[in-house]
Amino acid sequence: MRIYSFADIEGMEKRFRANFINSISGFKSANLIGTVDENGRTNLAVFSSVVHIGANPPLIGFIMRPISVQRHTYENILSKKFYTINALPIAMKRDGHKSSAKFSAEESEFDKTAFSAELNDFGVPSVVESPISLTCRLRSDQLLEVNQTRLIIGEVKEVKLNEAFLQKDGFYDLTEAGVAVISGMDSYHAAEDGTRFSYARPDREINEISE
Amino acid sequence: MRIYSFADIEGMEKRFRANFINSISGFKSANLIGTVDENGRTNLAVFSSVVHIGANPPLIGFIMRPISVQRHTYENILSKKFYTINALPIAMKRDGHKSSAKFSAEESEFDKTAFSAELNDFGVPSVVESPISLTCRLRSDQLLEVNQTRLIIGEVKEVKLNEAFLQKDGFYDLTEAGVAVISGMDSYHAAEDGTRFSYARPDREINEISE
Repeated sequence: MRIYSFADIEGMEKRFRANFINSISGFKSANLIGTVDENGRTNLAVFSSVVHIGANPPLIGFIMRPISVQRHTYENILSKKFYTINALPIAMKRDGHKSSAKFSAEESEFDKTAFSAELNDFGVPSVVESPISLTCRLRSDQLLEVNQTRLIIGEVKEVKLNEAFLQKDGFYDLTEAGVAVISGMDSYHAAEDGTRFSYARPDREINEISE
Repeated sequence: MRIYSFADIEGMEKRFRANFINSISGFKSANLIGTVDENGRTNLAVFSSVVHIGANPPLIGFIMRPISVQRHTYENILSKKFYTINALPIAMKRDGHKSSAKFSAEESEFDKTAFSAELNDFGVPSVVESPISLTCRLRSDQLLEVNQTRLIIGEVKEVKLNEAFLQKDGFYDLTEAGVAVISGMDSYHAAEDGTRFSYARPDREINEISE
């Protein structure tokens, strides 16, 4: 085992440090956030920071990088209030990564990648190829003073999903649905079949849950 | 594809909704947070909400559920200011899940599971069996008013890792290191080997990065 001090981390070359710090917090979700601007131009961007905030009410957050440059996703969410969060299929990992390129506001990632937009009842584009599409309404936009990033929280207003992978108790099988996992800044993985365990109690054995 | 409205979600049975909403935001990181109380009693708990906040300075966050009941991890972080974030090895998934049981303050998860504690220079326990252990110093503790959860952000003060899985450009191979992925509330997965892609630019082809 090797130990890196804070000074070691500070001394790392910038790109090395970005890869390093982005890797060591563990695997990450892989989602495409779909938005539309005031002129009806659609936008799609991959995010690896989507995080569960709560189930009741259903709240999902993600981290937005500092608004020091143009951020189409952020501007569109502020103006429209609604946006979609779409699971990235591992089979389309290259297109998912492509959506992170800095296209101009006139170009839609839906035209530059293989993803197809479907405008839903809330007026925002969901990704036809995704096995799960959530429509969220902006509930909170909080500046994180530590580094000027923002925590964006939305309430889930609609869920569209391929029911084939939904189990009886509400668990959705992301492996079978072919949803991607991200690590670091640029690595896309499939997940192997999972093992589910029963609710943990101090004085009881943990059992595996089978479907 | 099936559509669930907000009313459908509200009408779900509580446990079904918890499984459902916890699943649909995608795969999650699997980390054990190690702390110690003022009497020197260690604590360990699995978290699936650890999220990258920034690389420079190195900042990592996680979501803490509402402090309506005793939360040893939270109390210990507030009093000590330091804590560890340790990658959960997939080979120890059952022990990881076991750490989520509500043990009393007198019982340490390090005694109730197969994980071994090593008190580091910051006075907090890291997990000997983890391929990555981060020591964080509390930087920010923010209430999320939408549902009374908290976003806890720490600055990474030290990284201890098995160097065998660190690549030349700072990328850490979590698959080779055997780090777990979580889905839903209780499902533990291994990840398959990943594909890394070059930095995406609008006018260029994306290439695969090989080690």
